[in-house]
Amino acid sequence: MKIGVLGAGQLGRMLALSAYPLGHQMRFLALSEDNPSSVLGKTFIHNNNNNNNIEVIKKFSDDCDVVTYESENTDVKIIKEISKTTKVFPGNKSLHHTQHRGREKALLNKLNIPCAPYELVNSFSDLEKAIINIGLPAILKTTKNGYDGKGQFLIKSESQINEAWEKILGVESILEGFINFKRELSLIAVRGIDGNLRYYPLVENSHHEGILRLTIAPAQKISKSLQKKAESYMHSLINEMNHVGVLTIELFDIDDELIVNEIAPRVHNSGHWTIEGASSSQFENHIRAITNSSLGETSLKSKFNAMINIIGTIGPTDRVLENSNAHLHLYNKKERENRKLGHITLTSNSYKELQNSIDNLSVYLP
Amino acid sequence: MKIGVLGAGQLGRMLALSAYPLGHQMRFLALSEDNPSSVLGKTFIHNNNNNNNIEVIKKFSDDCDVVTYESENTDVKIIKEISKTTKVFPGNKSLHHTQHRGREKALLNKLNIPCAPYELVNSFSDLEKAIINIGLPAILKTTKNGYDGKGQFLIKSESQINEAWEKILGVESILEGFINFKRELSLIAVRGIDGNLRYYPLVENSHHEGILRLTIAPAQKISKSLQKKAESYMHSLINEMNHVGVLTIELFDIDDELIVNEIAPRVHNSGHWTIEGASSSQFENHIRAITNSSLGETSLKSKFNAMINIIGTIGPTDRVLENSNAHLHLYNKKERENRKLGHITLTSNSYKELQNSIDNLSVYLP
Repeated sequence: MKIGVLGAGQLGRMLALSAYPLGHQMRFLALSEDNPSSVLGKTFIHNNNNNNNIEVIKKFSDDCDVVTYESENTDVKIIKEISKTTKVFPGNKSLHHTQHRGREKALLNKLNIPCAPYELVNSFSDLEKAIINIGLPAILKTTKNGYDGKGQFLIKSESQINEAWEKILGVESILEGFINFKRELSLIAVRGIDGNLRYYPLVENSHHEGILRLTIAPAQKISKSLQKKAESYMHSLINEMNHVGVLTIELFDIDDELIVNEIAPRVHNSGHWTIEGASSSQFENHIRAITNSSLGETSLKSKFNAMINIIGTIGPTDRVLENSNAHLHLYNKKERENRKLGHITLTSNSYKELQNSIDNLSVYLP
Repeated sequence: MKIGVLGAGQLGRMLALSAYPLGHQMRFLALSEDNPSSVLGKTFIHNNNNNNNIEVIKKFSDDCDVVTYESENTDVKIIKEISKTTKVFPGNKSLHHTQHRGREKALLNKLNIPCAPYELVNSFSDLEKAIINIGLPAILKTTKNGYDGKGQFLIKSESQINEAWEKILGVESILEGFINFKRELSLIAVRGIDGNLRYYPLVENSHHEGILRLTIAPAQKISKSLQKKAESYMHSLINEMNHVGVLTIELFDIDDELIVNEIAPRVHNSGHWTIEGASSSQFENHIRAITNSSLGETSLKSKFNAMINIIGTIGPTDRVLENSNAHLHLYNKKERENRKLGHITLTSNSYKELQNSIDNLSVYLP
């Protein structure tokens, strides 16, 4: 099939690398030719001076059998235009709920899935009231367009309220109670058009300044009941949204209770290890799902896996290639502070060996 | 680096799919835009009406940091042109010996590596003499441009001599003694610019009408000494040719003696299973070698692996995707009799399960 991706970053790139062996063709709707995906498919540039070019979007759409997107921040107007002629997966409902933190929280509450307490904030006085109700510390987050910790402000004391409101530019937001978690986990699943559903194992994620730096897969010391609990939340959410493709849930682990932090309607950085670590990667499974094919196995190929992000500078990739457990993935992006330039997958059947490999590449960790 | 490939078939395609994650760019020198690789890199069309366009070859060469080739049948004139400005791996010596069956046999004899008895045949009377010396059955093979059993004629009785000579159009050939082998094996290895060398395990290959249909990896019932013997032949050959990149040796197994059948200076159909079955695939290792990077691990990821070629028609790929052990690889080629359109990798830690999966996909076998 001819598969279109809205966006042309590293996620589109890795989707393409998975799609070609399955016999598909790739098209990208992008902001510029200079992006990680453009060498891997036909690229349509649709945005000039912040204006969508509807003609280009139509041409892109007409050239695709099915369209998917890289980001929950995708412009709904573009999706609506494309949907006139071409199937888009995941569908409207997934995007509607996940691109707005308020709607996301409301959905979690509706499904009785634990999440942090929150209040919608549309004005400074809303913020003041919310702080009274929720207490401090709390996090002010824009309802839209947040990623990698952007559009967020941790308010520790009342003296910071003005600064917080200014930093997020006074846009529509939510105030969220701060969760004192033991660790961060995520669960990735894939659902087919036929409703078939497969889960990857829970993984553990370490962030630094809002950016994911290290994933351990599977997360260690996870009881069967905790995995099942996470899967039950996923089951409710993915079916409620009639989601097709990969869905990711970020979770806080608090003494074996799980609190949902965020939902992403897409392949996720914390699932990049699946390229080498799982029988079928999250990218291949997303492609299989949206093309109405059978889903691939999500079981582990190695007992222990890790993913280290390459952030800001490319670093000593020689050392990565010399490491017999390591696999290098670069995204063809220019070095820039805090930018995701690539990742390293480490695979092993010994946890000690995995730890040694991580230590050996600690230059890539904060 | 910018990596150029002479040729743009499935081998170039799979090299590209391995090269992008390592951060490289791909260029292809091709006969037409309509080929398996062209969607995966910049394509230069160099041949019009059987004439090489030197200007295009120069442009291609100037746009590459290093150049490799898909086939031992590559035109030496093109390599010479490119070598003026750009490094080509594998080098001249590898191509010189492997693209001519006579020179290949002479090299094997020089290195005391067992191969079938042979004589060069330049005329019909040469052929008559060779049959007296070698005996029948014997195989008449063109010295150049043979692949997938093309350019070969099995002579069983003297009554077929005329037919054989006509079939191969009376071009320069060798007559080779027929080897009554137990099974066909192959050994794939990779050698870096620094001379570093890694071997994959011996695999067993089943052909039908000259075309590879099934590879079992590793080959079963291989003694350590047999693996070592094959590696010692590889060691002699790859070092003698100062070969850089992947080299493949096809072998006949005759009651635990090994006879070399052919050498290919490239990634090989019998190594396609390494994409999922080995820590680093033959494609990734070829790219690592020619870009002067450390070589990747060649160890097995699953105990048992198989590769089934998709020949002539695409067949029921749904059944492939439904099989939890199977991985599909299509090359974006149109269906045509005896054409290699893709392959299936099967991986398992149980030989019985592997056999069941093969049986389940027997529609793809002759």
